Amino acid sequence: MAVGLSGEIDPDPVAGVRLGSAPLGVRSDPRDDLTIIELAAGSRAAAVFTRNAFCAAPVIVAREHLGRQAPRYLLINAGNANAGTGSRGLADARSCCQAVAERGACSADAVLPFSTGVIGESMPMTRFPEAIDSAIGDLDENGWAAAARAIMTTDTVPKCISRHFEVAGHTLTVTGIVKGSGMIRPDMATMLAFVATDAAVEQSLLEDCLVRATQQSFNRITVDGDTSTNDACVLMASGAGGAPSIDDPSSDGARALCGAVSEVCTWLAQSIVRDAEGASKFITIAVREGRDEQECLQLAYAVAHSPLVMTAMYASDANWGRILAVVGRAGLEDLNIAAVRIHLGDVCIVADGERAADYTEERGQGAMAVDEITVTIGLGRGAAEAAVWTSDLSHEYVTINAEYRT
Amino acid sequence: MAVGLSGEIDPDPVAGVRLGSAPLGVRSDPRDDLTIIELAAGSRAAAVFTRNAFCAAPVIVAREHLGRQAPRYLLINAGNANAGTGSRGLADARSCCQAVAERGACSADAVLPFSTGVIGESMPMTRFPEAIDSAIGDLDENGWAAAARAIMTTDTVPKCISRHFEVAGHTLTVTGIVKGSGMIRPDMATMLAFVATDAAVEQSLLEDCLVRATQQSFNRITVDGDTSTNDACVLMASGAGGAPSIDDPSSDGARALCGAVSEVCTWLAQSIVRDAEGASKFITIAVREGRDEQECLQLAYAVAHSPLVMTAMYASDANWGRILAVVGRAGLEDLNIAAVRIHLGDVCIVADGERAADYTEERGQGAMAVDEITVTIGLGRGAAEAAVWTSDLSHEYVTINAEYRT
Repeated sequence: MAVGLSGEIDPDPVAGVRLGSAPLGVRSDPRDDLTIIELAAGSRAAAVFTRNAFCAAPVIVAREHLGRQAPRYLLINAGNANAGTGSRGLADARSCCQAVAERGACSADAVLPFSTGVIGESMPMTRFPEAIDSAIGDLDENGWAAAARAIMTTDTVPKCISRHFEVAGHTLTVTGIVKGSGMIRPDMATMLAFVATDAAVEQSLLEDCLVRATQQSFNRITVDGDTSTNDACVLMASGAGGAPSIDDPSSDGARALCGAVSEVCTWLAQSIVRDAEGASKFITIAVREGRDEQECLQLAYAVAHSPLVMTAMYASDANWGRILAVVGRAGLEDLNIAAVRIHLGDVCIVADGERAADYTEERGQGAMAVDEITVTIGLGRGAAEAAVWTSDLSHEYVTINAEYRT
Repeated sequence: MAVGLSGEIDPDPVAGVRLGSAPLGVRSDPRDDLTIIELAAGSRAAAVFTRNAFCAAPVIVAREHLGRQAPRYLLINAGNANAGTGSRGLADARSCCQAVAERGACSADAVLPFSTGVIGESMPMTRFPEAIDSAIGDLDENGWAAAARAIMTTDTVPKCISRHFEVAGHTLTVTGIVKGSGMIRPDMATMLAFVATDAAVEQSLLEDCLVRATQQSFNRITVDGDTSTNDACVLMASGAGGAPSIDDPSSDGARALCGAVSEVCTWLAQSIVRDAEGASKFITIAVREGRDEQECLQLAYAVAHSPLVMTAMYASDANWGRILAVVGRAGLEDLNIAAVRIHLGDVCIVADGERAADYTEERGQGAMAVDEITVTIGLGRGAAEAAVWTSDLSHEYVTINAEYRT
């Protein structure tokens, strides 16, 4: 059950961007699991990819194609990651791009492939032609909701959001979808996220905008500390919204665009954690008063990755000793434990290196009896801060990951 | 259920070392949970402690006392860690030492306190005098087995082992006990381990022997990556075995002693993992052909701490893709995935960066259908190697840690 997500989505279309979905038949249940996104001629795109040294075939091909020309089509399949598939996997990814290119009357370099799912299985190549035909026949500006569903794997709800901003009197749109709920600890990228706007945007500004948004959204979440082989986040700008092009990074339009993209990315990133495998709680780990952002992040991730803290969160147990034990072992230089203060929500649980004087189990339990919990750790030695979002470690997480392939 | 441990122990006594146990009544079930170890006059001791910046009161006091004189008594209680208890916890630890010193006719500095259990609760001070009297009345050279049971917390079996070695025609003994099964990722030390020998050993040689043994045993295990606040390992030498003193680090006697101590420490360290919270498998992660030991350890720990790999182990799922994904994200510089080879037991599962050509699911399942599994990762770029021992991530782990305090 996703925390704080109803599963109801109501995306706004983006002029110049059409989406079509169809069943490829990788999954055992009969549902759409292949999506094509078509961009109007003249669109631009920027992308960030996984830094995992073991990256999937489609990541290699997408990087290569993006370096050659602006894309016209994105091809996404769910259920098979086409990772660890060697030279055959690379040939398969290229062949899929070629199939779309023939139908779209463009070069194969104008097609970016994306895959997500089980690692190490060959792609069901014979089934692609029919599914691609069907998805192209389905292309529609209102295809976002169906696409948000088609890219899901262990996700329990589709994740999709829209925001609007103004440029020179024109109202423009940013709409994004994301999939991902396990093997989540993005590094410069996320699972699969596709964000589009009808703004016209200069290429390097588009790239900056994506990197900045990603740093503060997808790069601030973790479910299990495992960075995927297939992570990718793409920001597309069709220029079809009728507004003048945004070229100056210091303009009001650039600020409005980047603000809207950041909002969409943050919402999508948080939605991954809300729908994390087995999640029963949405947890923010905020570290304050650090010497620099790096040590704040280091500690925040250490807490987020502690199985002992995350099982206590699952049990709604205000086990402050486990949190303090992680603070002590997180490798922060010259840390003075006596200066550390920890809050669960509004309740101070640790002060001066021990249980806060006015803390009671009752107040701790009260702070834990909600679905969304913020753990705030004050280090008392600087002005830097950083936060990461994560989920608890539940029986359901173990069940999902012990049974994923079976 | 501990993997490969029957729970039956048959320790050999160590001349000059007596142990007594008694119920302090911290635990809800009525059993011994306080132990005193008495060392003959003239004994020496060395110890390593947790590097967690948030360390427990008894760790602070034990370090302080050990710096002043050789100990005559060790006082150990299980169920309450006396950690996060501030100045009151420190006063309590000192007061416990004083109580033992009065009965043992020694100075309080000759008593080392050790605690393990729940963090953040005050010690039940009123109950100590009677329990200490009772444990002192129980002192016996054959008290090892009872002590191994009395120091347990979430351990399911007592852990105790003996080894023998020869010095100048005398047969000497090393016997050790250990407790620990969660919050395990020792750093320079372990949970609580007490190892004694009747050899006479020069102080700096005793210290070297302990540090070397610890590096290759307790510092090579992990259950959940969480370093405890109370870790300690003590090596005691009574000199009561009748053999000449071992003073020369290059002597046969020193080699025999260090060999026996290392064997005991390795057995004890592995037994912690075999009895790890929720463990259904004992797993060795061996990294070979690395540039240096550091990168081998870095990768081995990354695999051992991956919830995705460890839930797959629990499910006996030969999910080689998850292992390869960790290899790719472990942060090894300039890693060439195409040179990586991975074995599960004797079965090669990954070669040339993809599934091994002769791999079948059947062979993978065969390799997983045992309780003790070795994952060997060859990096193909050097001669360094390192191994760590860990356990799988099971439903039982979540249950134990979601319910520990309740």
